[in-house]
Amino acid sequence: MYRVAIIGATGYAGQELVRILARHPGAELTVATASQATSSARKLPALARLWDGEVRPLQLDEVAASADVAFLALPEAASAETAPLLLANGLRVVDLSGAFRLRDSAARARWYPATGELPDGVAYGLTEFERDRIRQARLVSNPGCYPTAALLSLVPLARAGLIASGSDIIVDAKSGLSGAGKAPTERTHFSENHGSVAAYGAFGHRHAPEMEQALGRTITFVPHLVPLDRGLLSSQYVRLAAGTTSAQVESAFRSAYATAPFVRVTGTDLPEIKHVAWTNFCDLGWRVSGDRAVIVSAIDNLLKGAAGQAVQAFNVAFGFEECAGLL
Amino acid sequence: MYRVAIIGATGYAGQELVRILARHPGAELTVATASQATSSARKLPALARLWDGEVRPLQLDEVAASADVAFLALPEAASAETAPLLLANGLRVVDLSGAFRLRDSAARARWYPATGELPDGVAYGLTEFERDRIRQARLVSNPGCYPTAALLSLVPLARAGLIASGSDIIVDAKSGLSGAGKAPTERTHFSENHGSVAAYGAFGHRHAPEMEQALGRTITFVPHLVPLDRGLLSSQYVRLAAGTTSAQVESAFRSAYATAPFVRVTGTDLPEIKHVAWTNFCDLGWRVSGDRAVIVSAIDNLLKGAAGQAVQAFNVAFGFEECAGLL
Amino acid sequence: MYRVAIIGATGYAGQELVRILARHPGAELTVATASQATSSARKLPALARLWDGEVRPLQLDEVAASADVAFLALPEAASAETAPLLLANGLRVVDLSGAFRLRDSAARARWYPATGELPDGVAYGLTEFERDRIRQARLVSNPGCYPTAALLSLVPLARAGLIASGSDIIVDAKSGLSGAGKAPTERTHFSENHGSVAAYGAFGHRHAPEMEQALGRTITFVPHLVPLDRGLLSSQYVRLAAGTTSAQVESAFRSAYATAPFVRVTGTDLPEIKHVAWTNFCDLGWRVSGDRAVIVSAIDNLLKGAAGQAVQAFNVAFGFEECAGLL
Amino acid sequence: MYRVAIIGATGYAGQELVRILARHPGAELTVATASQATSSARKLPALARLWDGEVRPLQLDEVAASADVAFLALPEAASAETAPLLLANGLRVVDLSGAFRLRDSAARARWYPATGELPDGVAYGLTEFERDRIRQARLVSNPGCYPTAALLSLVPLARAGLIASGSDIIVDAKSGLSGAGKAPTERTHFSENHGSVAAYGAFGHRHAPEMEQALGRTITFVPHLVPLDRGLLSSQYVRLAAGTTSAQVESAFRSAYATAPFVRVTGTDLPEIKHVAWTNFCDLGWRVSGDRAVIVSAIDNLLKGAAGQAVQAFNVAFGFEECAGLL
Repeated sequence: MYRVAIIGATGYAGQELVRILARHPGAELTVATASQATSSARKLPALARLWDGEVRPLQLDEVAASADVAFLALPEAASAETAPLLLANGLRVVDLSGAFRLRDSAARARWYPATGELPDGVAYGLTEFERDRIRQARLVSNPGCYPTAALLSLVPLARAGLIASGSDIIVDAKSGLSGAGKAPTERTHFSENHGSVAAYGAFGHRHAPEMEQALGRTITFVPHLVPLDRGLLSSQYVRLAAGTTSAQVESAFRSAYATAPFVRVTGTDLPEIKHVAWTNFCDLGWRVSGDRAVIVSAIDNLLKGAAGQAVQAFNVAFGFEECAGLL
Repeated sequence: MYRVAIIGATGYAGQELVRILARHPGAELTVATASQATSSARKLPALARLWDGEVRPLQLDEVAASADVAFLALPEAASAETAPLLLANGLRVVDLSGAFRLRDSAARARWYPATGELPDGVAYGLTEFERDRIRQARLVSNPGCYPTAALLSLVPLARAGLIASGSDIIVDAKSGLSGAGKAPTERTHFSENHGSVAAYGAFGHRHAPEMEQALGRTITFVPHLVPLDRGLLSSQYVRLAAGTTSAQVESAFRSAYATAPFVRVTGTDLPEIKHVAWTNFCDLGWRVSGDRAVIVSAIDNLLKGAAGQAVQAFNVAFGFEECAGLL
Repeated sequence: MYRVAIIGATGYAGQELVRILARHPGAELTVATASQATSSARKLPALARLWDGEVRPLQLDEVAASADVAFLALPEAASAETAPLLLANGLRVVDLSGAFRLRDSAARARWYPATGELPDGVAYGLTEFERDRIRQARLVSNPGCYPTAALLSLVPLARAGLIASGSDIIVDAKSGLSGAGKAPTERTHFSENHGSVAAYGAFGHRHAPEMEQALGRTITFVPHLVPLDRGLLSSQYVRLAAGTTSAQVESAFRSAYATAPFVRVTGTDLPEIKHVAWTNFCDLGWRVSGDRAVIVSAIDNLLKGAAGQAVQAFNVAFGFEECAGLL
Repeated sequence: MYRVAIIGATGYAGQELVRILARHPGAELTVATASQATSSARKLPALARLWDGEVRPLQLDEVAASADVAFLALPEAASAETAPLLLANGLRVVDLSGAFRLRDSAARARWYPATGELPDGVAYGLTEFERDRIRQARLVSNPGCYPTAALLSLVPLARAGLIASGSDIIVDAKSGLSGAGKAPTERTHFSENHGSVAAYGAFGHRHAPEMEQALGRTITFVPHLVPLDRGLLSSQYVRLAAGTTSAQVESAFRSAYATAPFVRVTGTDLPEIKHVAWTNFCDLGWRVSGDRAVIVSAIDNLLKGAAGQAVQAFNVAFGFEECAGLL
């Protein structure tokens, strides 16, 4: 049983962390704090009876004294400031922000200018491909929601050498609004999104370099907001290497995820968000026509795309069953 | 052809006014202004090609010089300040705020404390019952969206004496989010409303005294937010006077609306929002069981509940066909 | 550990039963069958990894041989036929249909003509008020979704004598579409409901006599379909008995639910569906003005309104903690 | 003034035709029929007051005698049978089905096997590029909703030679459910789509050969259903020819649509469905990064993607202003 702190417990991902960790068999939720300087404690009414503690203003001393591991669901600048202090106090950290995802200094400076140098002992928390590193890590950097869906679709093909070397890689993603966070803005206003779909961030979203870091090649990424709350469906388009058969594509996915508890390979039945919402699963299917392939993946952006995946990495890091608390 | 100004043209009701009046056969839209002190002019991209003018910072001189009538889609305090100045310049005014809806001084002071005294020459703009007053009025005070739906359901029965004198009158209304306006708040955040319904303002919403003023008796009013953009459905519950027959109920509605172009009496087929969204219609049906009755009405809150109704009153006030520009 | 069968496992409530019971600490899910004569077994892709069994055509012998208790999520006529056979084989039954909810013969004949006589040993499964009867019962008849929300709001006031004897009781309910089941119809077609709200069944819905049976008096019940999937919010309007104070209202609710694990009394903070969706909670709040009161309750219609409540009753019937498998 | 018949007036596109043509300054709506053998006439309640005629069972003699032009909103097999009979009677026809879109015999046989030979005098009704042919045509074949959005995005670049010859062309489209028609199916059931997104028809949708016919090259097309009613947003991905500048891309679009009343070029402001829903506009924007480009277009699938576009072609064919009845 490990003592767990959640820093940033009032946002959407933070509340999911509370919901999961309050019932996790290997975690004792000892402290939950708000992400910002708040002057008073408060309850989370939606989680009453599941967790009846109070979210308190952040005090690092308290966190350091009462937790073995801290989950940070903070803006990246706050994470970049907070995580090293907790690490220095001997805690292990799972960070849900983008602060520690990029390793290249130039890329960090460009996409996350407020986050400074990368500490030692960081693992990228896409558990399906990083179990060994996560076990060793002091800090697990939880992937972005879009990279999670895209990389689970692309990495098996790339590792198997099935993507043509000159192929464009297109990632067209559709995300629910909870991915945009809890702060009210014009972009997240109900009436602006109901009955609408909008593309945004084309060629300029910082989840693209995260995908490119993992794949080692350029990708074209355009996210879209779709009028739903929880869920993300991502469609990946590639050209297959010459001579690649459908059976090889299937084999690449089946073998990559043979022992992955949260990736459900659906084959040519393309996935849909409804089947994965409120779960930590990633459903993954594909279609091939000649040397063209489309791979479609679906996740709950707050779970497999954020809080669930963070707990999955925690499970691996601390020696629990990978599914603990997540089914 | 009358010269028309729209004051507050960037909000949801304001944009609907632009959309309607830009194509109205009897109106020339000469000026549109933003509701707040803004420093520069801007276009309305959603209305490009329908109206390609610029929304400019409000300057009363300009409005007074270039318009015969002004539509005000402003917060009530701004309306209370602006309308008298335009009236003093000889313009007629259609005001969409709550500033001029209540006549009783005490009620005004309680529910609209920022709005001061009521000017002369005000008509309540529920056109179906107020055509004569609207023709004479200098200022038409457009009804609230909830009172529109409730009063169209209740006034015919009340006038026909079919509501039992001791009956409770319950108004349970369900409104889309556009009724809450364009300013982003936690209450209008997409993720807080998708998949949700919430009651609010029970016994404390200022549309209740507006209904009570028209009916001369107490009503119980509870509005609810439902996860859609445009539309409002209101269910009214009353006890009928002893001996009232279904035929009398039907007759009350049929005769009240025999010549009303925008009220579609659907009888025992209860209305639904889908049929009235994007129209100025109010669909109205009912069911009777013994001496109990429920009357259900549906409107588009931005049209029959706001901008459409304002133009309907304008049509009557200026001698156009009541439907002009609205079908 | 009890062996459990789910009869009707492919519908929305049935799939929720599978999801819950596959992980219930005291249940072994031994058989799941389709509701209709189907010729072949099939998987439930949305539940893969949570339950990987097959839904098979119903064979009563198999069910009788392999289960101690059967959950029936069937149309009422099928339940009326199936339940007695399972009871005769010694199984206990939790029935989610309306077949066994009404006790009065005349009412049964009118509202559920296909369901015949009521067997012995039936308890009404509104666990909060029926724990003793449920422990003794051979068959638990799970309440309807609307009566669940309405009765949790009204019974405490009625039992405390706080509702005026001559008061109308109005139940205006708003339900998501999953309550209408899985069979595609014009009424459940996406485009007919998106952006819409519709009243239906006014004075003619069979959940009204179920409420009236529990309260012993007439209620006026109008359900509405709102454009969401899971969730139900119900607004109840009553006149309070002379002299009733707000404190008495609060006390009635607090004491009624002091030990009820699934009713969260929110006081004058009115509930919203978002807080209860995907949970077995009923959130319940109210407002009082003079002798008028509105009580608002919110549930997930598939959980507290169907499958979750069924498992709650199962927990009580078989001596488990009331929350087992449900948090 | 031309006499107009609508064949198939009860479906979603058919009702939009009624709504538009009942108010069209150059059309007299003389007859509207249901798409299937129906035994009795019926009203369209949502269109009451806009058009109070009756939709009657189809009788070709009546149509031939009372109309100069017929709009067919029928399944393609019914269109293939009906259109030649009306042409033979001297009517001009605007057909909204896929029956007459493909010109190549082999492609027709594969994708529309029930439609037989192509008659003479058919024009493809993508008015922006086909005005001359439409003026001459006896039969206008209205484009599919997806090809409309995709081709308006791609044809200007292709004609200007700005797409690299070896480039993949990816069309990732997101459509509201009204595009799936009015017949209730599991795929269009509310609860299956609310909160969900699903890809379908990858490499197998018959709108792909329609795009390929217009472009003369292979495209990869994957449509997705998004949880809204009206609207379609399509994202097109291409590689630009070597040396292409952003200015050339902009120039290609600006000049292609300089006089097109319904295409609003938004430049690097990417479009959103909300701005075009309930209009006949196509909003079109793009982003360029090096030699990669994404072009995003948005339409109302029932208007610019169906009924509105059909009336636009009618306007051109009969010499009206292209916008008549459509603003």
